[in-house]
Amino acid sequence: MFEITVDDAKFWKNCVDAIANLVDEGTFEVKEDCIQLKAMDPSQIAMVVFSAPKTSFSIYSVTSAGKISLNIDSLSKILARSRSNEKLSMHAEENKLELEFSSENNKRSFKVPLIDIPAGAQKEPKIEHDARILLKPSAFKEVLKDAALLSSHLTLEATSDGFTIDVKGDSADLLAQSANVGDVVQEMQAKNKARATFPLQYLDDMVKACPDDAQLVLNLKTNTPLKIEYAIGEAKIAYYLAPRIEAE
Amino acid sequence: MFEITVDDAKFWKNCVDAIANLVDEGTFEVKEDCIQLKAMDPSQIAMVVFSAPKTSFSIYSVTSAGKISLNIDSLSKILARSRSNEKLSMHAEENKLELEFSSENNKRSFKVPLIDIPAGAQKEPKIEHDARILLKPSAFKEVLKDAALLSSHLTLEATSDGFTIDVKGDSADLLAQSANVGDVVQEMQAKNKARATFPLQYLDDMVKACPDDAQLVLNLKTNTPLKIEYAIGEAKIAYYLAPRIEAE
Amino acid sequence: MFEITVDDAKFWKNCVDAIANLVDEGTFEVKEDCIQLKAMDPSQIAMVVFSAPKTSFSIYSVTSAGKISLNIDSLSKILARSRSNEKLSMHAEENKLELEFSSENNKRSFKVPLIDIPAGAQKEPKIEHDARILLKPSAFKEVLKDAALLSSHLTLEATSDGFTIDVKGDSADLLAQSANVGDVVQEMQAKNKARATFPLQYLDDMVKACPDDAQLVLNLKTNTPLKIEYAIGEAKIAYYLAPRIEAE
Repeated sequence: MFEITVDDAKFWKNCVDAIANLVDEGTFEVKEDCIQLKAMDPSQIAMVVFSAPKTSFSIYSVTSAGKISLNIDSLSKILARSRSNEKLSMHAEENKLELEFSSENNKRSFKVPLIDIPAGAQKEPKIEHDARILLKPSAFKEVLKDAALLSSHLTLEATSDGFTIDVKGDSADLLAQSANVGDVVQEMQAKNKARATFPLQYLDDMVKACPDDAQLVLNLKTNTPLKIEYAIGEAKIAYYLAPRIEAE
Repeated sequence: MFEITVDDAKFWKNCVDAIANLVDEGTFEVKEDCIQLKAMDPSQIAMVVFSAPKTSFSIYSVTSAGKISLNIDSLSKILARSRSNEKLSMHAEENKLELEFSSENNKRSFKVPLIDIPAGAQKEPKIEHDARILLKPSAFKEVLKDAALLSSHLTLEATSDGFTIDVKGDSADLLAQSANVGDVVQEMQAKNKARATFPLQYLDDMVKACPDDAQLVLNLKTNTPLKIEYAIGEAKIAYYLAPRIEAE
Repeated sequence: MFEITVDDAKFWKNCVDAIANLVDEGTFEVKEDCIQLKAMDPSQIAMVVFSAPKTSFSIYSVTSAGKISLNIDSLSKILARSRSNEKLSMHAEENKLELEFSSENNKRSFKVPLIDIPAGAQKEPKIEHDARILLKPSAFKEVLKDAALLSSHLTLEATSDGFTIDVKGDSADLLAQSANVGDVVQEMQAKNKARATFPLQYLDDMVKACPDDAQLVLNLKTNTPLKIEYAIGEAKIAYYLAPRIEAE
């Protein structure tokens, strides 16, 4: 069905981790020009949309497009076992995905069973967000750690003046303010003020795999799902996260 | 009431850690020339006495002296979130302490609620100790780890010949002997032989925050509370610890 | 009875760790020309055989050969407390082993009680293995980690073509193949095909103490105990491990 090789197994590991941070199982669509995956998290409040073009791979030979469903968590653990000088080849057998790591004189082949996942009509939401904030990933990860001291939720707010994170906790409150350009925010546009509250654990899971040298983009609109985007090499990852709507 | 700024937030973090290692809650007395704190640990066998002069801070503006009681543990966790290039400003609001970390274009403000602590008449004990031992902090910490393998208590002894640590355990006994000058003991005076037994966990907590380049001073007298002293920058910390009195 | 000194306490620590990884208690035979130990693990499926010649030690003075039985786990923890610049001297007292770590102006003496272990007639098995495989320790340790993802057992196979590790797991299967010379296998001879299955945890414990620059030797024969050998400095360590015999 397909034969795909990546020279740097770490690239594919990082892609799969970005998915595994949100879902345990998923279906890769192996198309002629790209690999895609869309999946809702088990609690149905978040979605991950992944796409890697064929140019991300050194060999990308797909004789017929198809779907393979896998335990993403097992796949992530196996990819974590890649060594630095190894090449990774993947091909589907009847009911297994074979992952072959090879270097000179040695090869290791993991065969991961395919699983059945009911085909859901998972559509990517179409939202016109009011604010788009480009953040330095490490700086945003640090603020999430600040917030984690205090609460399980945080409120994001964007205005034309800048970007604010607000946390109410039992032991303390936190207000983190960044001007619209600086160490944390690298660039931002806000057509209107946008403000919404999100569960911290999900935000954490969504930014965990973001490379330090990538640009992390937050798309925000009041009481509307957040969209987080970043690239891993040539691959693109997007997450959607439902806000917590509070009575005013 | 006051506005205090420290250019290096790590300094204040280290001070608060030295207190937090012994007590969960405490009352800072913010005076015109210094900040002080005295507190007994919950089991009442140990005491911490802390003092930082106004010169430790880059801005120290106290309009009226006052007391603020805080959960020291929460404060320590918040201070641990300081970044390397940040300045820390503290000021008291009606019932909160505001900690503002700021760097160019970004600021984070934590508001920590003040708590009620009954004002105790905590007096610092006046003891004329028989021996004064200046130790290399890292060397003393290592001996405490040796002791922790074997028992929950250890016996300290100072004579004119040197300094001895004695541990009786189930799996082994330990006798650690240091001459009165060397790698472990940097200098010592012993008017009389002094020997007493202390709980290891408390000693551990008391030396944990001692900077590696500080001088750790032990003041010892037979079956009398131990006094441990060291400096963190210009601030001074002292601990008292009751001995375990054993039937002879 | 004896007075033994080693200039580099880490050497003796590594030796004792290699034993402690398999057994909790053991009897050292202190002979005129070497120290030896043979012990079965508590479940009786594995054995360790250790020997260090007198030339491993800077002082080796044995007035009468004898045996000392010890809690090896306690001994290992005490040896882990050696500092980098310390010399270690060991001598037996009536019912204790004294370990004295010393540097200029400081000494620490641990006294470990001797214990009673029934003298077992532990004979080293005599097996003529069919294959002998010299492995790079770090590469073999990595394959054991691969296997640990999937199962508690693995199958080793040697043929004239190379060395294979085979794991059947719930989440995936693994087949790791190494040519008879390369990054993993440094050299091997196989008179006949040899294949047997072993518990992963034991293999892990047996290779844990193998220095990265040592040669790890596996001696393999179908459905027969495996022998693993390596050197720690001048000392030699060998382990035997019973295979899991499966109905065909």
